[in-house]
Amino acid sequence: MKKRLEELKWRLQEVQALNAVSSVLGWDQTTYMPPGGAAARGRQMAVVARLAHEKLTDPEIGHLLDRLERDAADLPDDGDEAALIRVTRRDYERAARIPADFVSAFNEHQTTTYQAWTTARPADDFKALEPMLEKTLDFSPQLSGFFPGFEHVADPLIDLTDEGMTVALLGELFRELREALVPLVQSISEATEVDDSCLKQHFPAEAQLEFGKTVIREFGYDFDRGREDLSPHPFTTAFSIGDVRITTRIKENDITEALFGTLHEAGHGMYEQGIDPAYEGLPLADGASSGVHESQSRLWENIVGRSLAFWEHYYPRLQSIFSEQLGRVSLATFYKAINKVTPSLIRTDADEVTYNLHVMIRFELEKQLLNGTLPVSDLPEAWDARYESDMGVSAPDDRDGVLQDVHWYAGRIGGVFQGYTLGNVLSAQFYKAALQDLPEIGAQTSEGSFELLGSWMKENIYRHGRKYTPSELIERATGGPIQVQSYIDYLKKKFGDLYGLK
Amino acid sequence: MKKRLEELKWRLQEVQALNAVSSVLGWDQTTYMPPGGAAARGRQMAVVARLAHEKLTDPEIGHLLDRLERDAADLPDDGDEAALIRVTRRDYERAARIPADFVSAFNEHQTTTYQAWTTARPADDFKALEPMLEKTLDFSPQLSGFFPGFEHVADPLIDLTDEGMTVALLGELFRELREALVPLVQSISEATEVDDSCLKQHFPAEAQLEFGKTVIREFGYDFDRGREDLSPHPFTTAFSIGDVRITTRIKENDITEALFGTLHEAGHGMYEQGIDPAYEGLPLADGASSGVHESQSRLWENIVGRSLAFWEHYYPRLQSIFSEQLGRVSLATFYKAINKVTPSLIRTDADEVTYNLHVMIRFELEKQLLNGTLPVSDLPEAWDARYESDMGVSAPDDRDGVLQDVHWYAGRIGGVFQGYTLGNVLSAQFYKAALQDLPEIGAQTSEGSFELLGSWMKENIYRHGRKYTPSELIERATGGPIQVQSYIDYLKKKFGDLYGLK
Repeated sequence: MKKRLEELKWRLQEVQALNAVSSVLGWDQTTYMPPGGAAARGRQMAVVARLAHEKLTDPEIGHLLDRLERDAADLPDDGDEAALIRVTRRDYERAARIPADFVSAFNEHQTTTYQAWTTARPADDFKALEPMLEKTLDFSPQLSGFFPGFEHVADPLIDLTDEGMTVALLGELFRELREALVPLVQSISEATEVDDSCLKQHFPAEAQLEFGKTVIREFGYDFDRGREDLSPHPFTTAFSIGDVRITTRIKENDITEALFGTLHEAGHGMYEQGIDPAYEGLPLADGASSGVHESQSRLWENIVGRSLAFWEHYYPRLQSIFSEQLGRVSLATFYKAINKVTPSLIRTDADEVTYNLHVMIRFELEKQLLNGTLPVSDLPEAWDARYESDMGVSAPDDRDGVLQDVHWYAGRIGGVFQGYTLGNVLSAQFYKAALQDLPEIGAQTSEGSFELLGSWMKENIYRHGRKYTPSELIERATGGPIQVQSYIDYLKKKFGDLYGLK
Repeated sequence: MKKRLEELKWRLQEVQALNAVSSVLGWDQTTYMPPGGAAARGRQMAVVARLAHEKLTDPEIGHLLDRLERDAADLPDDGDEAALIRVTRRDYERAARIPADFVSAFNEHQTTTYQAWTTARPADDFKALEPMLEKTLDFSPQLSGFFPGFEHVADPLIDLTDEGMTVALLGELFRELREALVPLVQSISEATEVDDSCLKQHFPAEAQLEFGKTVIREFGYDFDRGREDLSPHPFTTAFSIGDVRITTRIKENDITEALFGTLHEAGHGMYEQGIDPAYEGLPLADGASSGVHESQSRLWENIVGRSLAFWEHYYPRLQSIFSEQLGRVSLATFYKAINKVTPSLIRTDADEVTYNLHVMIRFELEKQLLNGTLPVSDLPEAWDARYESDMGVSAPDDRDGVLQDVHWYAGRIGGVFQGYTLGNVLSAQFYKAALQDLPEIGAQTSEGSFELLGSWMKENIYRHGRKYTPSELIERATGGPIQVQSYIDYLKKKFGDLYGLK
């Protein structure tokens, strides 16, 4: 058994090295690659992806798994080895069940659609994408079909990134959340409007970048095992546990863009940096799910980074850097400004309270598309109707409407948005559990120290990587299954105080 | 035949994609990778290198070559396809004849020795490297042994990077060169010493970098298909014809370091950028040899970049950027300073006249090591004796003596230095041929225009990639075989004028 495990590990490390190489190629592509490199880079990435897929679906891995699973009774249930076998089985099946022809046809379709989206969005031309989106809507249930036994056709798609989640479970969770959010948004809309003009002054890029780096270094993001660069869309990418990079983008007329983007990506980054080094090179060295990963970015960005305690410590430092812009802006004004709640058109710019309404709209529309009750041609109209009814806003055109997010135009329909809301929900659930174990966390935050919070997250979440399923991990960390109440309590308390609600 | 050629190309493109990926990993490693990424990066690079080697030595490539060579009579002798078959045969044999076990043992030895050198050099500890160097001296003839039929044991090693060159041919070339250089150095040493203190002032890094970029953009280096970054040792690396990157390093107390380093690497870079785009992804898309490649870096760095005509145009611009430092330094003083000839200890800092003497010392010592007439333990002493007799200088310790160059400690003994001198020699031979075809080149240079020179190089050298052997390429471009006279004439004229020699 030991020998078989060694052989499995050796094969998996080869696959993981190739996946890491793909990530390096992708990182370079979006940060430093000159335009002339694009064509060859596409071919290089295709070769590496194909080899990684070939290596992972090598039938020898299947045989090793068969034999290891038979012998797994000898292994401790809670051990790394049993987890490795479970996780490898999952990855192997995901890779092996999807025929190579489907993968390449779907990839090609996604690339074509993405390219078309990059010009169709600025041109406000949904019509140009319609036939492609229809094809995506054909591909998505085909993909589900490779994983039979589902209740809803979107379930296998959701399971790809949020293991164990289903349309039914999410529907329930979204319903509860909605019942709390809608009246909260309503109350806030009746309160005095917040003035956030202090954030929209001119803030020189270099100084913004430096401040963000200072903060995340103090969060615990390790620059000896990572770095921050600029890219058109911020992201986190891990080449190994020792090399986890983040990116950000800067707007000189909006101090929130780079700052909260940096805190957000640092949350993802610290998760990857905190994985047990014993998992290096194995499929265990990854986040537990999309939702759990997003819980960390949202926790550090919002629960910490938009809290009053945090700014009690950092605001004087920010004022000293931007004394001309913020010298006469009070902490109270600044704190309200960065937490201004307002129904808006763009998901990525949304505040903490309305953010999830954006996700729910997409989730509902995806279901209707997949159920066949909404034809692609009616999607823009349905989108606008939902924004009008749920948020009370309407986009001047599709650019800030149905064309705003790349997800449907570069991926699949179904299973691509739930992670954002799961992340929000889990961020509060994890934070509450951490506070119960270590009540001094709040006081530390107002002193600019994050040692207790960081070590709780590392101990309960980061270090485990993919060892536990998301639900096991949540259960172990918080003593119960995922629940929305902590998050609702958090929002009600924070925004109740902020807006003086009863 | 067409089908076989297509299959060969497809296979070669896969190999080349993996080689390009290795280059990306290497570039990132030396420019941006955080220290924590080192261990995993080594494993990632090993996986990609192994796969590239497996793909290149796939016996199917051998079979395709056998059949294509049989049918090659149908192909035009001078066509790209015949060249592709020839070049692929060469690469295939080089890869296939060396057993995989030897490759991995030798690579491991090289990595260990390199690591040891990085600490042994600062510690001035040759003794620590002695046993490793002895092992290197065992590996080198073993490597030659895989290519039987040589006259001198170093011949196959030289042929790896400078096809067609041998110890005998190089010995003759070095002898001729030496006969001209020694009296030239002697005459210069009797002339008035040049004062180069104007170069050793404080020059802010950012402004140095910008000036260098401006010049190479005007040379013709294409920043849409390349970029310049910082690294501890400057280098050029190509990921495709559309993505050729260079690096430099800056000394704020020496303006020559970044500037001439940048011009040098831009020469390599323009060569790679100028290859016929039809060769993209094929082994033809590379330089013809180490010597031909180096001819371009030395041409743009020295023949152009250290010429009076060049500085007639650029010196006023440099003065306006560094007016405090150079405002009162005349063009004549600056021109002399950047061309100061002085026997020195360090090859990489050497002037144009003495540079080749450094190479010859290494070439002679390599021969003696390989012949068995010089034991490794006597190498430092032999090194010092040669520097004393050939250059009249002696190093205070081995750091600036036998330990200065990484080549023997990270590679093989034999075949690693000749490219530098071949490059110097060829730079003058190519330049003379270009001037004969286009006499206006000199006038253009003094106007800061390089269109004629660049287009001659592109037409006669760059675009061909590896289509021709080095000797065919030289013959086609200059009408004759490699010869040292043009280079000797160039040095005698330039430094005769500079030092007022008769």
